[in-house]
Amino acid sequence: MTHRSRLAGFIIDCETDDLGAAAEFWAKALGSGTAPESDLYTRLDPQGGLHVEVQKVDHPSRVHLDIETDDIAAEVARLEGLGAKRVSEIKTWVVMEAPTGHRFCVIRAQTEAFEREAKTWA
Amino acid sequence: MTHRSRLAGFIIDCETDDLGAAAEFWAKALGSGTAPESDLYTRLDPQGGLHVEVQKVDHPSRVHLDIETDDIAAEVARLEGLGAKRVSEIKTWVVMEAPTGHRFCVIRAQTEAFEREAKTWA
Repeated sequence: MTHRSRLAGFIIDCETDDLGAAAEFWAKALGSGTAPESDLYTRLDPQGGLHVEVQKVDHPSRVHLDIETDDIAAEVARLEGLGAKRVSEIKTWVVMEAPTGHRFCVIRAQTEAFEREAKTWA
Repeated sequence: MTHRSRLAGFIIDCETDDLGAAAEFWAKALGSGTAPESDLYTRLDPQGGLHVEVQKVDHPSRVHLDIETDDIAAEVARLEGLGAKRVSEIKTWVVMEAPTGHRFCVIRAQTEAFEREAKTWA
């Protein structure tokens, strides 16, 4: 069995009560439009080939990476084999922590570039 | 006078004594090669059109964004106008802090995509 994965993009997690202001700063900083999605997420324009979203969070602000895959269980197991730890499952994605301390998410394949650019893992 | 800027990429800052192990984790996680540059930096393969480097740091691990520009002073002033604050100057780049609390860097234009993709600011 093989599966595939790719860096899908990154999320700018903002500890704020004002998602609109946070998204406006990052949109103007990056020269992007904004597309509000919910009370928690505003999508910015893709940067390079990567998706970018601004998220309202209640933990300290950070940037986290999203890895997209066609098999979340297999990708989580692969990353555990590299030393990452599973932190939690939220809806359709899994939050993990790298051995370097960074939180990141494993999400369902969703970018247009996935078929073209994803790596295959045996 | 106009100047231009673009999101160049991101740096995975790792609070570690072992840059090699940190870079190896992220390279394998992202399906990338590694190109050690110095005792502090290892370059990974570009992801999408964005550069990615793993950096050894002595502050808590985080991911920071790099904005590249053909006029650092003008870009820093533009970002200050949006509410960001100048933190420090290091060699040829300026460290800034966003109103959302994220640190990021303004660096000299350096990607192949700059001419094609950078936004122009009046």
